[in-house]
Amino acid sequence: MKFESMLSRQIIGCDKEYASADCVVFGAPFDGTASFRPGSRFSPSAIRTESIGIETYSPYQQKDLEDTAVCDIGDIDLPFGNTARALLLIEQTVSQIIKDGKKPIMLGGEHLISLPAIHSVQERYGDLCILHFDAHADLREDYLGEKLSHSTVMRRVYDLLGKDRIFQFGIRSGTQDEFAFANAGNTTMEPFTLHTVKKVVQFIGNRPVYLSVDLDVLDPSEFPGTGTPEAGGVRFLELLEALLKLSPLSIVGADLVELAPHYDVSGMSTALACKLLREILLLIQ
Amino acid sequence: MKFESMLSRQIIGCDKEYASADCVVFGAPFDGTASFRPGSRFSPSAIRTESIGIETYSPYQQKDLEDTAVCDIGDIDLPFGNTARALLLIEQTVSQIIKDGKKPIMLGGEHLISLPAIHSVQERYGDLCILHFDAHADLREDYLGEKLSHSTVMRRVYDLLGKDRIFQFGIRSGTQDEFAFANAGNTTMEPFTLHTVKKVVQFIGNRPVYLSVDLDVLDPSEFPGTGTPEAGGVRFLELLEALLKLSPLSIVGADLVELAPHYDVSGMSTALACKLLREILLLIQ
Amino acid sequence: MKFESMLSRQIIGCDKEYASADCVVFGAPFDGTASFRPGSRFSPSAIRTESIGIETYSPYQQKDLEDTAVCDIGDIDLPFGNTARALLLIEQTVSQIIKDGKKPIMLGGEHLISLPAIHSVQERYGDLCILHFDAHADLREDYLGEKLSHSTVMRRVYDLLGKDRIFQFGIRSGTQDEFAFANAGNTTMEPFTLHTVKKVVQFIGNRPVYLSVDLDVLDPSEFPGTGTPEAGGVRFLELLEALLKLSPLSIVGADLVELAPHYDVSGMSTALACKLLREILLLIQ
Amino acid sequence: MKFESMLSRQIIGCDKEYASADCVVFGAPFDGTASFRPGSRFSPSAIRTESIGIETYSPYQQKDLEDTAVCDIGDIDLPFGNTARALLLIEQTVSQIIKDGKKPIMLGGEHLISLPAIHSVQERYGDLCILHFDAHADLREDYLGEKLSHSTVMRRVYDLLGKDRIFQFGIRSGTQDEFAFANAGNTTMEPFTLHTVKKVVQFIGNRPVYLSVDLDVLDPSEFPGTGTPEAGGVRFLELLEALLKLSPLSIVGADLVELAPHYDVSGMSTALACKLLREILLLIQ
Amino acid sequence: MKFESMLSRQIIGCDKEYASADCVVFGAPFDGTASFRPGSRFSPSAIRTESIGIETYSPYQQKDLEDTAVCDIGDIDLPFGNTARALLLIEQTVSQIIKDGKKPIMLGGEHLISLPAIHSVQERYGDLCILHFDAHADLREDYLGEKLSHSTVMRRVYDLLGKDRIFQFGIRSGTQDEFAFANAGNTTMEPFTLHTVKKVVQFIGNRPVYLSVDLDVLDPSEFPGTGTPEAGGVRFLELLEALLKLSPLSIVGADLVELAPHYDVSGMSTALACKLLREILLLIQ
Amino acid sequence: MKFESMLSRQIIGCDKEYASADCVVFGAPFDGTASFRPGSRFSPSAIRTESIGIETYSPYQQKDLEDTAVCDIGDIDLPFGNTARALLLIEQTVSQIIKDGKKPIMLGGEHLISLPAIHSVQERYGDLCILHFDAHADLREDYLGEKLSHSTVMRRVYDLLGKDRIFQFGIRSGTQDEFAFANAGNTTMEPFTLHTVKKVVQFIGNRPVYLSVDLDVLDPSEFPGTGTPEAGGVRFLELLEALLKLSPLSIVGADLVELAPHYDVSGMSTALACKLLREILLLIQ
Repeated sequence: MKFESMLSRQIIGCDKEYASADCVVFGAPFDGTASFRPGSRFSPSAIRTESIGIETYSPYQQKDLEDTAVCDIGDIDLPFGNTARALLLIEQTVSQIIKDGKKPIMLGGEHLISLPAIHSVQERYGDLCILHFDAHADLREDYLGEKLSHSTVMRRVYDLLGKDRIFQFGIRSGTQDEFAFANAGNTTMEPFTLHTVKKVVQFIGNRPVYLSVDLDVLDPSEFPGTGTPEAGGVRFLELLEALLKLSPLSIVGADLVELAPHYDVSGMSTALACKLLREILLLIQ
Repeated sequence: MKFESMLSRQIIGCDKEYASADCVVFGAPFDGTASFRPGSRFSPSAIRTESIGIETYSPYQQKDLEDTAVCDIGDIDLPFGNTARALLLIEQTVSQIIKDGKKPIMLGGEHLISLPAIHSVQERYGDLCILHFDAHADLREDYLGEKLSHSTVMRRVYDLLGKDRIFQFGIRSGTQDEFAFANAGNTTMEPFTLHTVKKVVQFIGNRPVYLSVDLDVLDPSEFPGTGTPEAGGVRFLELLEALLKLSPLSIVGADLVELAPHYDVSGMSTALACKLLREILLLIQ
Repeated sequence: MKFESMLSRQIIGCDKEYASADCVVFGAPFDGTASFRPGSRFSPSAIRTESIGIETYSPYQQKDLEDTAVCDIGDIDLPFGNTARALLLIEQTVSQIIKDGKKPIMLGGEHLISLPAIHSVQERYGDLCILHFDAHADLREDYLGEKLSHSTVMRRVYDLLGKDRIFQFGIRSGTQDEFAFANAGNTTMEPFTLHTVKKVVQFIGNRPVYLSVDLDVLDPSEFPGTGTPEAGGVRFLELLEALLKLSPLSIVGADLVELAPHYDVSGMSTALACKLLREILLLIQ
Repeated sequence: MKFESMLSRQIIGCDKEYASADCVVFGAPFDGTASFRPGSRFSPSAIRTESIGIETYSPYQQKDLEDTAVCDIGDIDLPFGNTARALLLIEQTVSQIIKDGKKPIMLGGEHLISLPAIHSVQERYGDLCILHFDAHADLREDYLGEKLSHSTVMRRVYDLLGKDRIFQFGIRSGTQDEFAFANAGNTTMEPFTLHTVKKVVQFIGNRPVYLSVDLDVLDPSEFPGTGTPEAGGVRFLELLEALLKLSPLSIVGADLVELAPHYDVSGMSTALACKLLREILLLIQ
Repeated sequence: MKFESMLSRQIIGCDKEYASADCVVFGAPFDGTASFRPGSRFSPSAIRTESIGIETYSPYQQKDLEDTAVCDIGDIDLPFGNTARALLLIEQTVSQIIKDGKKPIMLGGEHLISLPAIHSVQERYGDLCILHFDAHADLREDYLGEKLSHSTVMRRVYDLLGKDRIFQFGIRSGTQDEFAFANAGNTTMEPFTLHTVKKVVQFIGNRPVYLSVDLDVLDPSEFPGTGTPEAGGVRFLELLEALLKLSPLSIVGADLVELAPHYDVSGMSTALACKLLREILLLIQ
Repeated sequence: MKFESMLSRQIIGCDKEYASADCVVFGAPFDGTASFRPGSRFSPSAIRTESIGIETYSPYQQKDLEDTAVCDIGDIDLPFGNTARALLLIEQTVSQIIKDGKKPIMLGGEHLISLPAIHSVQERYGDLCILHFDAHADLREDYLGEKLSHSTVMRRVYDLLGKDRIFQFGIRSGTQDEFAFANAGNTTMEPFTLHTVKKVVQFIGNRPVYLSVDLDVLDPSEFPGTGTPEAGGVRFLELLEALLKLSPLSIVGADLVELAPHYDVSGMSTALACKLLREILLLIQ
């Protein structure tokens, strides 16, 4: 009788050693700037608990997580009420993973956590491109005066990377100014749908890519468990199809944000997030 | 420091003065004849609270609520258990708004509230047509002996307006008699779908139109927060597309009924209702 | 004043006498092998309570349950913790219904209950074919060492019936081995979708058919109330369309399994199950 | 194999024949005048379903429901939106039960249903006394102009029976006027607690008694499942102790009202109501 | 017909003009440092909506809110993710109310908001004493390195006011260090219960008092709607009794914090908070 | 940067090495015989996740979990649908812990799991006594014919240990037969309350003791998260007081069963269970 394995709490199929892993999954349970309904901090924990409900095998890609080298290292311990320090801790974590020659896969938390992650990744990969799937443009200059907010995150990424580096899909909500900012050519935005993914993949070519998936890009009917549900979203199968088109790209990091389990009473949003994570890991590996 | 604005509770973007408003939004929190699960009385209050979660700008119509003249005047105070008096109070409210030269936009409550509203509107607009989006035919002669019920409301409207005046879309539930009544030409009904909207718009021409949207026309997956969820409904994007086709019409009044927030645990139905209200207001203005 | 009728709790429209009934509906509230989230035992009771929310008339088939000979006889009283005895009791019930010349329509409970039902039915109908709608292949040889599990049920049915008798639709989850087992020709499987139904109907011809519908074949957005929600499922209207294509077949028994009402906070899954049951009864009759 | 018994849905232990029953339990699922949160209409159905979770034996009274002659006849079919007709149907039901020489035990629904029941009972028992356990005084002259409301029910009972006939316990909410009305000697009211029950029992002596228990007399911590939870209530054990003190009285009818199962997410309020019903039945028998 | 009054959303009975008010109620919807489960930001809004469920009359104090001069001015608009600025905005609001000669009654939000409020109040009232009802000591020097947290708030108040000024009741959770800090005489703490209130009232005499009620001092059975439920708390009636003993004191400000409506599924916690607010307002007035 | 500690999922304060631990906590997530509402299988996982909400320090005992030698080894992997094998696996786990000279602390799961645990413990400690806190007698001879059920567990323990070895407290539900069995002297039962604990402690003296706490002994108001809530239970503080009286005893093993987190919407039951576990660990150590 050996008790060692009884405590394993890693995401299903993500149980390789850190040293030998290619992809490193970790949680960044921060939701401090959520403007409407907080709670995405509970997302990594929920994904870990609920992941046992899915298979490690993907009939879509006909690959198995068991055959990959993924390590789930757990959650960063983040202070509440101090946004700056939380972002710093995330940045340090991502930097270390990159330095160790591995790909960071971050589970939010809210969308602002993409900022320090992208900051770390682009230090290593100078010509980094961002693929951004979201219901919201996240291009505000500020939110109630705050520069650092989940509503401004892509504007801050723009400040970091400049023009022609951010590709946005599925956007269906924003202020008049945000849409104008995108339309002025500062980002490449496809509103409402995901039809231009293939074209963008060709355009990017072999530049390194960071993939940021705000899960509220999905229709609330398929993904109710999020802080700001926005009707008229894309379907899981459409998103999956779009993501599978990314296979030619060199993806060097990714995140999956804005799952808020408390609004997911049936558990279906968390289950979907687990499944999507599986597909992304199989795609990147 | 000024405290005056801290209590504002109007629906987002509906904060113009009554005197200068073109459209007047109000709540009619009545659900007295709900045959299955009551609770639509809480709908206007929920819409007011949750509307802060959406933007005032519509990327679909590329218009902003801030640029319109809409006033939210709050809820009518309705007695419980006295259907007749509740209907009378609604009728008086609508009559006053019409008399003041404005368009009434009523938030239910259950569907029976359309009856007094339509009664008031047709007193001013004799040749009024009704556009009715719903899962249910609402054409029963009576319900357990009651003539006034949310299941009979369009039959009562028929009693008022007669043939060729009611246009029904998306209907997917009813008794054999109700479908027979419609098929006999008493109303113009498109069951299940919304494909004939454009044709109906042309047919109506410049006659005045009252728009009655029972939100359960939507599929329960996108709109679970309603008393009688009925599988196989239309999608938000289909409904939105159909509504945007109404732009040539002269809409003189509208209602949005049967949101029951208690069954909307994730909040997505209320958020959808807020978004749809924004689109309807931008359409009518 | 007669009080006799006040206690009727049969499913709406299923109130004929047993003696004169063609179809017999009953509940098998067993969920003992549920590997993830139990609770399907509450399904028959929920369907009985909520069925009053739907009409007996189907606008899809233009038929009315009132015109059929269906009898709802209630639930089998099953012991908890003793899988073998529960299965035996189900088998005896189905055998009796078959012996009385009627068609059994079983409401789960979990999917394992299909095994004793199919066992009984195939004793009477030797060349029985199985139509299996599900998100999961259910073809495992065992689950954590258990041969009898809701994850192994179709493998056990295969052990019983052999090759070319099981037709699976909509499957989108399973281990590598399960898909390999199906691909080896042991079952006829259409993964993800329901496009081959018509072809299968022709292939089966006039052989007797048992129809087993695991409701999680539906997308969780339309059917959240189930133990293992699996994103990317089919729509109610797709499933309905597929089922209506079965009309040429000789269906001699059916089940509807894996509704777990506790995860169905809005009630929409139970309502959908009621509606689907109505359509199946009208189809079979 | 006999299927007859599989559909039994009577409350546990209440399965005697009507003809031989002493006590007759029935549901009056009416909540039309609920001023705050409706839903008590679902109470009798919930009690029927959940009663299987309790034992028929009471260790408090050391008696067993199996040894009594109680019959559960089901629910009255009440129209929604027509208060007057609903009350009439309740009155007719109670009258018939009384005429048949049995004791009516009514399950609400809201409190207004006590009015027609008491009206029927006092026609047979002229000197009827009312024992009223409640959080609310229910002594308003009217509610928003309505004379018939769950907030006015005891005032209407007063109109019927006059002074010295109504005994109120546990009252902790009301308008200044309601408390003044009671203090003026129109009713005998013990606010907040149940200490005077024994004294009242002695005072009443052998006059016939109708027992009306509004379950919100209980603290919301023990009974959250009600429309208007009011902090500071009595405990289940205090209420039980008080009720057991009624054994010397001649109770000729009773009701249990204002359970609203939708607010009882854990199910504990419904379970408590089942248990209290068992104790009241054992007390009265 | 006048529409002006239809939008009133003030807490019931708190509808006097600001100019003539003695007490000013406002919301501070901040929960940025919540270490466990956020959501207290929704509290003021929930209290406003649900307050219509209670009476303005208190049978405990035999006084009516209608007879007082209380004004509810609404919520401060607070930025998310910037703790310092949120606290500053609260401080400015309280300062203005004090300057206008009125008493501030603040609705949280989390407990950290007491810090700026107390800071403002003590600028006017130099010898201010704090009455602190809570489950948690809130005396940590820091929380994960943060000095400003809902777990450190009373330590920060101590830094401001010094010894012999903080009186804590009902404390039943804390680190060893926190209890040691209190036992060293830095604060006056009664753990678990509220028995020493009367003695403390006498000790304070006519010094000005700020009353801070963390609602989780109540037992979770009576108040489940809070972020960190802690078993073994005091009852509502005990808390009410303790508060009524404060009547000899000169209370110059108060707050009611840590209601988190999302965990209050039955609504009973919000209803209790409304009732407690009524009693505090009647006490202070 | 070291990632090792980021995955720690042990119960708070239970993070010592197995080798050096005195007490070993583990989960037995089995609920296969639950007769009413299953779900206690999710309890150990919920306790692990939620334990971060409590302090390791107990102000009741003035001791700190950090100062103890407790190791949480995780959950046993149990097969569903095979009661016999699940019980065997539990027995083996407990035997190993006992053999290693440590005390087993088992987290249910349902109550039947106490049987194999007690079986293992009594093999080592021949004169073992059982302290049993519960709402239900659990003394049925069988349940629907099943000998092994959570309703029969103490009867099976009796079969194992015989007379004068089982001491039951707080029992308030059972059949007439169960109470008769206890009254006949087969067990020592104190119904409803916990007043005789001290006397029993003296009676037991230095015999070894196994402590079995079915959490539904608590009142549902304080512990709604359980399968069969039974009104009229004891308070947390009463239970705590009783448990602290056990300090003279030699407790060699314990369990905490029947938490069903799905019915614990506010999270307060899980929080209470965490707190009680802390107190029991501090008591036993």
